[in-house]
Amino acid sequence: MSKYTIGIDFGTLSGRAILVDVNTGEELATSTLEYKHAVMEYSLPSGKKLPSDWALQHPQDYLDVLSTTIPMVIQEASVAPDDIIGIGIDFTACTIIPIKSDGTPLCFLDEYKDEPHAYVKLWKHHAAQDKADKLNEIALNMNQQKWLNRYGGKISSEWLFPKVWQILNEAPHIYKEADYFIEAADWAVWQLTGNNTRNACTAGYKAIWHKQDGYPQPEFFKELDPRLENVVEEKLHTSITPIGEKAGEITGRAADMTGLRAGTAVAVGHADAHVCFPALKIDGPGKMLNIIGTSSCHLILSEEEESVPGICGVVEDGIVPGFFGYEAGQNCVGDTFGWFVDNCVSAEYTKLAEHEGMGIHDYLTKKAQQLRAGENGLIALDWWNGNRSTLVDVDLTGLIVGLTLKTKPEEIYRALIESAAYGTRKIIETFRDNGVPVNEFFAAGGIARKNSLMMQIYADVIDMPVKVGGSSQAPALASAIFGAVAAGSVLGGYDDVFEAGKVMGKLDDKVYYPIPENVEIYDRLYSEYSTLYDYFGKYSKDIMKRLKAIRKEHQ
Amino acid sequence: MSKYTIGIDFGTLSGRAILVDVNTGEELATSTLEYKHAVMEYSLPSGKKLPSDWALQHPQDYLDVLSTTIPMVIQEASVAPDDIIGIGIDFTACTIIPIKSDGTPLCFLDEYKDEPHAYVKLWKHHAAQDKADKLNEIALNMNQQKWLNRYGGKISSEWLFPKVWQILNEAPHIYKEADYFIEAADWAVWQLTGNNTRNACTAGYKAIWHKQDGYPQPEFFKELDPRLENVVEEKLHTSITPIGEKAGEITGRAADMTGLRAGTAVAVGHADAHVCFPALKIDGPGKMLNIIGTSSCHLILSEEEESVPGICGVVEDGIVPGFFGYEAGQNCVGDTFGWFVDNCVSAEYTKLAEHEGMGIHDYLTKKAQQLRAGENGLIALDWWNGNRSTLVDVDLTGLIVGLTLKTKPEEIYRALIESAAYGTRKIIETFRDNGVPVNEFFAAGGIARKNSLMMQIYADVIDMPVKVGGSSQAPALASAIFGAVAAGSVLGGYDDVFEAGKVMGKLDDKVYYPIPENVEIYDRLYSEYSTLYDYFGKYSKDIMKRLKAIRKEHQ
Repeated sequence: MSKYTIGIDFGTLSGRAILVDVNTGEELATSTLEYKHAVMEYSLPSGKKLPSDWALQHPQDYLDVLSTTIPMVIQEASVAPDDIIGIGIDFTACTIIPIKSDGTPLCFLDEYKDEPHAYVKLWKHHAAQDKADKLNEIALNMNQQKWLNRYGGKISSEWLFPKVWQILNEAPHIYKEADYFIEAADWAVWQLTGNNTRNACTAGYKAIWHKQDGYPQPEFFKELDPRLENVVEEKLHTSITPIGEKAGEITGRAADMTGLRAGTAVAVGHADAHVCFPALKIDGPGKMLNIIGTSSCHLILSEEEESVPGICGVVEDGIVPGFFGYEAGQNCVGDTFGWFVDNCVSAEYTKLAEHEGMGIHDYLTKKAQQLRAGENGLIALDWWNGNRSTLVDVDLTGLIVGLTLKTKPEEIYRALIESAAYGTRKIIETFRDNGVPVNEFFAAGGIARKNSLMMQIYADVIDMPVKVGGSSQAPALASAIFGAVAAGSVLGGYDDVFEAGKVMGKLDDKVYYPIPENVEIYDRLYSEYSTLYDYFGKYSKDIMKRLKAIRKEHQ
Repeated sequence: MSKYTIGIDFGTLSGRAILVDVNTGEELATSTLEYKHAVMEYSLPSGKKLPSDWALQHPQDYLDVLSTTIPMVIQEASVAPDDIIGIGIDFTACTIIPIKSDGTPLCFLDEYKDEPHAYVKLWKHHAAQDKADKLNEIALNMNQQKWLNRYGGKISSEWLFPKVWQILNEAPHIYKEADYFIEAADWAVWQLTGNNTRNACTAGYKAIWHKQDGYPQPEFFKELDPRLENVVEEKLHTSITPIGEKAGEITGRAADMTGLRAGTAVAVGHADAHVCFPALKIDGPGKMLNIIGTSSCHLILSEEEESVPGICGVVEDGIVPGFFGYEAGQNCVGDTFGWFVDNCVSAEYTKLAEHEGMGIHDYLTKKAQQLRAGENGLIALDWWNGNRSTLVDVDLTGLIVGLTLKTKPEEIYRALIESAAYGTRKIIETFRDNGVPVNEFFAAGGIARKNSLMMQIYADVIDMPVKVGGSSQAPALASAIFGAVAAGSVLGGYDDVFEAGKVMGKLDDKVYYPIPENVEIYDRLYSEYSTLYDYFGKYSKDIMKRLKAIRKEHQ
């Protein structure tokens, strides 16, 4: 009498559903749908051009994921909808939609089809940077904005208020017409449940919400723009639901759309990184989860709310219920390796890799693996796209030192991997130094599962064993786990996220243990990294800033 | 009634003769011969293996150049040997041969054919580094060694005494059998004239000789090794001849070998970089000549002997007679571009270059040319092979700062060119700050003649017009000019090097003038370069040294 849940992970380019056995964690079926409109960076469906730095999506694509992938996994797994007890959803964030009070996106209305601001602003919509800058400046000048410390002293242009402010500024009629600005995660949950919920994760990490203090006060928003004074009351007036709660149940309409039984439990929405904890069986504070992709994200739970300088955020109930969830991160990890491979690998190596039938990343990794720790004589600062934590400075840039005429591409490649590991160690040490213990280390994401050299280097640099997630779709699996918690033990699910994770989560058998002689070498190299980190990131950070300024002047 | 001279340039892999019209500088004929034994790095002709870092040559190859290329140019130009009034020779240095008192190289003797130390030690023989280190240490400890200041505080392992000491140490019988250790430049002159001369250039720059003070004292050499105490008296006991003098005349035997008329004037030997001055019409102090190749060399004359920190050497009569000649340099320039192209240029660019029918250097240069000054946002420290001037530190390494995910290969390529220019400006400013004026700038070498982007960047960075040599064989042309001076005006030549250079030397019509807006930008970037230069080269130079040490430990 097995029971099942479904997890749906809405990524940047596609949505994926998986169907999981609640009692074993077995992933019985998976289905992915690419978004028809992908990311709209240059024009609307009507052909209307978009300015640069824009990134929009079409909410119809999200509905298509729900109506396509859910029936697919039910069919593929051949399970009865009655045995599917819950569903969970995670989404990219901050990804926001202007909607009417009934949940209809403004872009669904004929009169706004040609209005860019009526569409979904994807997390990587970067056209609100001036608003973020202004917001940070004002927050700094208004002494009462103690919330600034919870976000490492800076709000990102990717977050809710800069995006909403941009709408107000550039399309005041859209701002006026919108009854809500809502995270896509919560909107998708609304489509299934008919309930307008707002999850604590995205509210906390992306919308400056705090469990005790709420949102910033109207005086602050008024300072940004008098028309924003009551933005919270007017556009976000929904109470916040902690992560791990049930948002509602599948409605009759949603049942028709998905093939699920009406009444199936639906979990509160979650962000696609933060959701992952239980998928790796993480069951409490002190256990850091590092999700490694193009960029990387460091998440950890604590029982205390500490002020940790230079982190991205701390949110109560924001990762799992009952704990303060901390987030930090690195702006580019996989992206740096991608940059290197696209720009800096010789034709000779490309040919040799082809000859061996290997991808260039695999080829470089293989060659880098033959090097010993310290043999490349290189240190890189991993700031190709700025530093998110602990310096919170997008104007910092990448650096390589130690180059000689004998330096080979695989030595630079390894140095880039090492620099990502040093950056992670810097984040770990910052947490520890500020009262947030880090005792164990878990890694998830495609690179973590594929690149054993990288994981060994991480283990050696941070001097902790590295445990890697066992599922190739950790976010979707985690959402399925939250679906099982939404159903609760009465229906054959679980009452506790950790308990559910212990059964349904997965870790690779292989654990990367630190190799003592490498730990010793990397200790010494990390000390050089730290010297450079402080020199270029603190004492003489103007060098990089001035270079960037000169570049901007002359582009 | 035209008169002619011949210049012979002995390079690393070949020797080249040119025949020049003394009254016009026209180059009427040229002939090149590759050395049959090239550079012996792995084994002797007998097959005997050589240790690593060795670089030997066979003196028979030099004789072959004389006996082949001189007749060739005489024939090609169809001039009468009677109208050839002089000949000059320049050579790589320090390139030394152990010889008997009659000039016979020990390796010509049957009993030493299989003895590596009996052969020519080429300038880039690097197996005497431990001897150089020891020599520098001892010189530093013996306070009287004020000559150390003339060489930027350090003797190179490429120079005469470390090489001779290595011979003494590893093959004492060869040391004993050798009546002289002689520069190949002087040996070649001896083969033509029968006279054993020793030129002031290589004596000064490579053998610690000074016009007033002579060589270091026996006490110093005794400190190195008691057997070296009288090395000068025993193995170098030839008086030093200033550059610009006549060494002698073609002997009957040399006439038979070369087709020259017996009695033709032969100039004192010269080094292949230092010789170039008159080939670019340089006619006095304050005019810097930068010879740009794999590495680069900065030469300038002054009427005063100043102590300039971190230069390679200062020698009276060492470049042209009557002046103090200063030398500084950069350990790698063209080599860095070569490293970049070999290791760091994407397959895509390689393909695009092929598609446009361009070499990859030309393709990158073309793309780098489309960038504006400052647009790459990068600064490199040009230390891929250490820093020769002004830090005199082979353990420094290369650095690039300012890298982002948008950085393209041509931007790095341009940054490497710019860093070479900044390094040159640093040398110029060091000369100026220490009493050696630098008022004009001349560039020679293949890269200087080919890469107009690089020359424009040099002009913009140093804020002086850059004049480029007009001959593709500047050293050989310069040797022909010294040949005309050896002949003297009585025979239709010249009595003064500057006078000869003005007539026979050549400059490109194109002069690179500084572009004011670029000068302004590069001023700002140079100030960043200087900050990094001081940080990594002085205050925190141990960062690079420690990285290198760690690398060595783990290789």
